[in-house]
Amino acid sequence: MFKINQNFLKLPGSYLFSTIAKKVASYKEAHPQNEVISLGIGDVTLPLVPAVTDAMHRAVDEMGKAETFRGYSPDGGYEFLKKAIIAGDYTPRGISLDLDEVFISDGAKSDSGNIVDIFSTDNKIAVTDPVYPVYIDSNAMAGKTGDYIESRQGWSDVIYMPCTAENNFTPEFPEETPDIIYICCPNNPTGTTLTKDALSAWVKYALDNKAVIIYDAAYEAYISEPDVPHSIYECEGAMECAIEMRSFSKNAGFTGTRLGFSVVPKALVSGGVALNSLWGRRQGTKFNGAPYIVQRAGEAVYSDEGRAETKEQIAYYMNNAAIIREGLSAAGYSVYGGVNAPYIWMKTPDGMSSWEFFDVLLEKANVVGTPGSGFGPSGEGYFRLTAFGTLDNTKKAIERIKKI
Amino acid sequence: MFKINQNFLKLPGSYLFSTIAKKVASYKEAHPQNEVISLGIGDVTLPLVPAVTDAMHRAVDEMGKAETFRGYSPDGGYEFLKKAIIAGDYTPRGISLDLDEVFISDGAKSDSGNIVDIFSTDNKIAVTDPVYPVYIDSNAMAGKTGDYIESRQGWSDVIYMPCTAENNFTPEFPEETPDIIYICCPNNPTGTTLTKDALSAWVKYALDNKAVIIYDAAYEAYISEPDVPHSIYECEGAMECAIEMRSFSKNAGFTGTRLGFSVVPKALVSGGVALNSLWGRRQGTKFNGAPYIVQRAGEAVYSDEGRAETKEQIAYYMNNAAIIREGLSAAGYSVYGGVNAPYIWMKTPDGMSSWEFFDVLLEKANVVGTPGSGFGPSGEGYFRLTAFGTLDNTKKAIERIKKI
Repeated sequence: MFKINQNFLKLPGSYLFSTIAKKVASYKEAHPQNEVISLGIGDVTLPLVPAVTDAMHRAVDEMGKAETFRGYSPDGGYEFLKKAIIAGDYTPRGISLDLDEVFISDGAKSDSGNIVDIFSTDNKIAVTDPVYPVYIDSNAMAGKTGDYIESRQGWSDVIYMPCTAENNFTPEFPEETPDIIYICCPNNPTGTTLTKDALSAWVKYALDNKAVIIYDAAYEAYISEPDVPHSIYECEGAMECAIEMRSFSKNAGFTGTRLGFSVVPKALVSGGVALNSLWGRRQGTKFNGAPYIVQRAGEAVYSDEGRAETKEQIAYYMNNAAIIREGLSAAGYSVYGGVNAPYIWMKTPDGMSSWEFFDVLLEKANVVGTPGSGFGPSGEGYFRLTAFGTLDNTKKAIERIKKI
Repeated sequence: MFKINQNFLKLPGSYLFSTIAKKVASYKEAHPQNEVISLGIGDVTLPLVPAVTDAMHRAVDEMGKAETFRGYSPDGGYEFLKKAIIAGDYTPRGISLDLDEVFISDGAKSDSGNIVDIFSTDNKIAVTDPVYPVYIDSNAMAGKTGDYIESRQGWSDVIYMPCTAENNFTPEFPEETPDIIYICCPNNPTGTTLTKDALSAWVKYALDNKAVIIYDAAYEAYISEPDVPHSIYECEGAMECAIEMRSFSKNAGFTGTRLGFSVVPKALVSGGVALNSLWGRRQGTKFNGAPYIVQRAGEAVYSDEGRAETKEQIAYYMNNAAIIREGLSAAGYSVYGGVNAPYIWMKTPDGMSSWEFFDVLLEKANVVGTPGSGFGPSGEGYFRLTAFGTLDNTKKAIERIKKI
């Protein structure tokens, strides 16, 4: 008799964003006349830039001709894209990477979920709290998180590192020593960052404790302040203790186009085994590459036109972020993030719970945000808004929230 | 201290096709003047058909305009594609499926590898032998296959169902009762099929033993004989015991475009839990959908033009299959498959091992095939050729093999 993975049954409810989608759908059905603005799920609204669509059209044409048709992608991705990534994101920051240290994928969500495959079940993970749910849920599915304790909205075997206004949203070294540390920086959901000194301290901590850092840099393109590292490999020693994940979703609007990559340095070794080869084997066995057309699209993001055009999009969203920050601050809310990240993290008013505020916002302002508690116990009493709406909608949403 | 997944270290050597690629690359480097023809990896050579590239161009244009831009795909995929799949592949065969029983993915390789996530580690898997390596390797990585026994080229906790010329490549019910049964039909690598009666017997066997069948129908489009089911759901009771996986790689040339789907019927239940909801949760957490552009490309495969154009491609490859079958038979080889599948399975001559024959073919004929032993212990002494080459190359390759 076949047996299911019982760990799935421990997961509390459904995936956060699916729950929100259902709530919004049912509200819209009940109030078809109301225009609902979503600043909830971190989905972009600006179209793909011309450099990208031009590259895709060319690639589609190549795929339509026998002489230029491409079948299976090489394991780990096309060299043209890996070269563009290394030359664009790493070499200028003094980071030297081999081509086979970069693994192209269909996105950082897949990578951050699938990376659990290469670790044993008896690792203790540490996460910042609040946190992007995928890190925990993927570990929970693999039976690596113990039991879900309803009363504290958390897992028995996960080390939570609270990030609240009290500590300026900066994780502190936990009492218990973790084996795997998830750091997302700029942070989703709080929109906050770590300085180079703070991140370097984490790298040293990981090296000292033989821990590995899963570093999610999906929002790297939004960094505006000088003292925030764009890659963890800017910190000395990180090649020996960190895997870095990047995405094209937020810097180039690829949420519906799907492209990302992970860097697994060959110097990252455990008991003589390079994690680089484990990840290569995992991907070689259970993944067949990102589409050729999409890899060409990714390459175009690094062209001169692509850079200029995507930079404008980022500026557009960061202008939204400023509007949200300033609007809500003026209205008396406590607001964080939004300077090096497209996320604004706010305190709910009057001691409301995160989901209570979600309902108020949906019903009274017809604005959709994301309840902070959905990101972990320390997210309770907070709320996330994203800067990915259109300018008009963002302005309108803030006006409506001000009037509540 | 972080610990790696030790199961990875039990895997014998690297993934089969990576090994072949390396061998071929090193041969080419040593003999740059020799033209090597690959009938090895099952990668297509014909370009995408016009119906598909037209749809992709349109979708790229949509992605370039704010009004028609698409962000994250809905969980499980777009309705337009699921509807096309159900109407094209299932309704005409009397199979009724709900939209949320179809999960769009980036290919059958990912799905057949990732499906292990929803099962517990203590299931006993049964595979036909030879078999597509992903089924076993993905289970091995999850610690579900025991130890690899070098002497018998197999895993201690896997039930192998030998498929050889002696039993006409048809698996027999194993002595030990399995929990999860992998069936690929038409089969990769043997190119053989099961009749409706034979497959129905497997469905009954699974129901009787409360086993689940993972049915890989990636080569369904190549079925030419009337008594071979195109879907396992043509067999009574299969909705309660089978997951079916399909791919666009082989019927529409999407190996480099990446699209597939899995059907997980809601009637497939274990201890009151629907596998449909487990897979939905797995995909919702660790996958973010196939690209919009690619989902539109998939939809176009089901249009009248798309069907007509891809049918021609399949006929082209099946003509290659006939050339290989007939050429090798005439040369005195024992040849199987190639009638309902793009794969030809042959006995190696003179008791040669599969890898010996690989080397002979590469060195004497400059033809790349796939060693049967790479697919499992019962594949030893066999060899796989694919019909996915160009017509010219296929003819040339067979002429060269004849001359060995």
